[in-house]
Amino acid sequence: MADTFSELKPPARVLLGPGPSNVHPRVMKAMLTPVIGHLDPEFIAVMEELKKLLRTVFRTDNELTFPASGTGSAGMEMILANLIEDGDEIVVGVNGAFGARIADSAERLGAKVHKAEAEWGRIIEPATVEHALKQSKKPKLVAIVHAETSTGVHQPLEEISAIAERHGALMVADAVTSLACVPVEIDKWKIDACYSCTQKGLSAPPGLAPVTFSARAMEAVRTRKSKCKSWYLDLAMIANYWGESRVYHHTAPITMNYALYEALRVVIEEGLETRWERHRRNAAALHAGLSAMGLKLVAQEGYRLPELSTVAAPDGIDEAQVRAALLKDYNIEIAAGLGPFRGKVWRVGLMGESCKRENVTLLLGALEQILTAMGAEVARGRALEAAAAAYAEK
Amino acid sequence: MADTFSELKPPARVLLGPGPSNVHPRVMKAMLTPVIGHLDPEFIAVMEELKKLLRTVFRTDNELTFPASGTGSAGMEMILANLIEDGDEIVVGVNGAFGARIADSAERLGAKVHKAEAEWGRIIEPATVEHALKQSKKPKLVAIVHAETSTGVHQPLEEISAIAERHGALMVADAVTSLACVPVEIDKWKIDACYSCTQKGLSAPPGLAPVTFSARAMEAVRTRKSKCKSWYLDLAMIANYWGESRVYHHTAPITMNYALYEALRVVIEEGLETRWERHRRNAAALHAGLSAMGLKLVAQEGYRLPELSTVAAPDGIDEAQVRAALLKDYNIEIAAGLGPFRGKVWRVGLMGESCKRENVTLLLGALEQILTAMGAEVARGRALEAAAAAYAEK
Repeated sequence: MADTFSELKPPARVLLGPGPSNVHPRVMKAMLTPVIGHLDPEFIAVMEELKKLLRTVFRTDNELTFPASGTGSAGMEMILANLIEDGDEIVVGVNGAFGARIADSAERLGAKVHKAEAEWGRIIEPATVEHALKQSKKPKLVAIVHAETSTGVHQPLEEISAIAERHGALMVADAVTSLACVPVEIDKWKIDACYSCTQKGLSAPPGLAPVTFSARAMEAVRTRKSKCKSWYLDLAMIANYWGESRVYHHTAPITMNYALYEALRVVIEEGLETRWERHRRNAAALHAGLSAMGLKLVAQEGYRLPELSTVAAPDGIDEAQVRAALLKDYNIEIAAGLGPFRGKVWRVGLMGESCKRENVTLLLGALEQILTAMGAEVARGRALEAAAAAYAEK
Repeated sequence: MADTFSELKPPARVLLGPGPSNVHPRVMKAMLTPVIGHLDPEFIAVMEELKKLLRTVFRTDNELTFPASGTGSAGMEMILANLIEDGDEIVVGVNGAFGARIADSAERLGAKVHKAEAEWGRIIEPATVEHALKQSKKPKLVAIVHAETSTGVHQPLEEISAIAERHGALMVADAVTSLACVPVEIDKWKIDACYSCTQKGLSAPPGLAPVTFSARAMEAVRTRKSKCKSWYLDLAMIANYWGESRVYHHTAPITMNYALYEALRVVIEEGLETRWERHRRNAAALHAGLSAMGLKLVAQEGYRLPELSTVAAPDGIDEAQVRAALLKDYNIEIAAGLGPFRGKVWRVGLMGESCKRENVTLLLGALEQILTAMGAEVARGRALEAAAAAYAEK
């Protein structure tokens, strides 16, 4: 007999990992908007509004600002595949898994990569980037992760961008985990190409990669000597679809575009500054609570992302067991560490819709209960008070 | 003042173009399923079911059968990027826009492409493929479009697959417009790699590309000398996420996976054979009606796809004006011709949920009204009767 397949019945979770974050109810509703054709004038009107919405959130006037038809990593690959030609030398900041991913992708596309490295958990120093640039012959671009999701490090970009410009290199930023959580200033910081995702700060489901390209970046695309190695991500063709000529390239993921549209409306109604401040306040309370419990934060002090915290698991505690208990008994998702942080570190997200006082309170309470039951050496009865005190501060 | 952005209000359309087709109501409902993490055991359970569902629809036992995280063209690129290495010689069937797309993508990835060509609107003859194979040095693969969406041609695959095998080449098929509309028999026809989409025969929104790989194809992937040029589409890494080790690669588009799950359940509940027959019957009625009106079908007789018909616009009629009237006055989408068919041919889809008697009747009625009003020389009052007669046949 054939297999039978039951209705989908996954539980509702409190999503406090590195993404996806909880989806805003208005975004869920927007996904019921009728699917229409990707060349329908009514969908083209939505595309035009989407570009405006994304420009607002990216803080840019870049004409070519749109959602690429894949997840965040597809945005990364779109930028690299269109800017890099065989033999181009580039500089990539590597201080975690997502910087390493850029280097890997760029090498596959034919680049010679000079790594500007730092230890996991620390920022990349501008001097390190400058040094790598000096090793490069005609450096094509510098690519840096703004919010390193594997370490929780908040990388300052402005000084590095100025260094890249002095060396005649384009500045590329990974804003997958930063957009709509902390300031991302494409024009002010002179970032030439940037990619993000939908399922973190924007709180839509995963599936699209918002990207933006400066005129300088587009000039580099226009003057390529070779075709982009990716047909699917070829910017020259995709810009025709998202631009005035509307030439069909591929079928845009209509429903995900609706979801992103509504998510961006929600962000803009809240206001970017208000949203950044909300992330700051909730993270401060979480950090105060975790510290009061005796848990250690892993990312370099002064450069901690509010939306993604890395927390050292206490000695002698099986970190996976804690995550399993959070999931099973509280329906809370937090994430494991990657690479050198595997088995040692938790990654706790407070992103977009998930970033709220009730979730901070719930997580601190649940963690304290679980760790206490496991016999971990944590200070009891202090975390909630410390968090409340943090909220009480101006 | 900042721009204000209004609620999404696109109209409901009757989608009779080459995709997207109308989405099944149950699929819309499934998209409201809570988004959970891409590594959540509950999502992993959904992934396992999805693989089984896709194997059923592809008629294969291939272990590696899953939805790639992009639209149909991403599925194409995934297969090419993972099977092709620099300098590999391949044979590509080109008799329309989508065969040409395969050739373009493969060349960007470093292949030397031998084209097996036919006129737009005609099938590729097996002898042409054999000839191209004989021109190739150690041909790596033969890639053919099963349902050429630009011409409406239904390409027989089994004989070409046998020829590919005799020449030691892998057989790759584009089933973007054929899956769940006409028989697609991966195992029986010995197809080594195949890609499709979600928004045509399956009637889910666009956003994923179901793919399947035979053991022989995976052996070719495993024994590559160079890394796959695409990080995003690297099958070795993605197979780890979709396979037992569950290593994180990218964040799967959760909601689109839910949509696909439900769409596949609907397909399997109807039964593939029943679904194929439904497409055959409705297309027969549409074709009878169009012919009775005096309109000409463009694709080679005997090789016409039921799910996608190419229809010549009558002489002296502005085909774009007809499409505009269908959209404006009836909310019906049909599509323009591509390439050499631009301005001359309509593309009419009857796919998945859109493939039903009420839509055939509506379209015939609307076309007759519009063409008559435009003064086209069409036979009046005959189309509906001819369609009814076709339905009355066994």
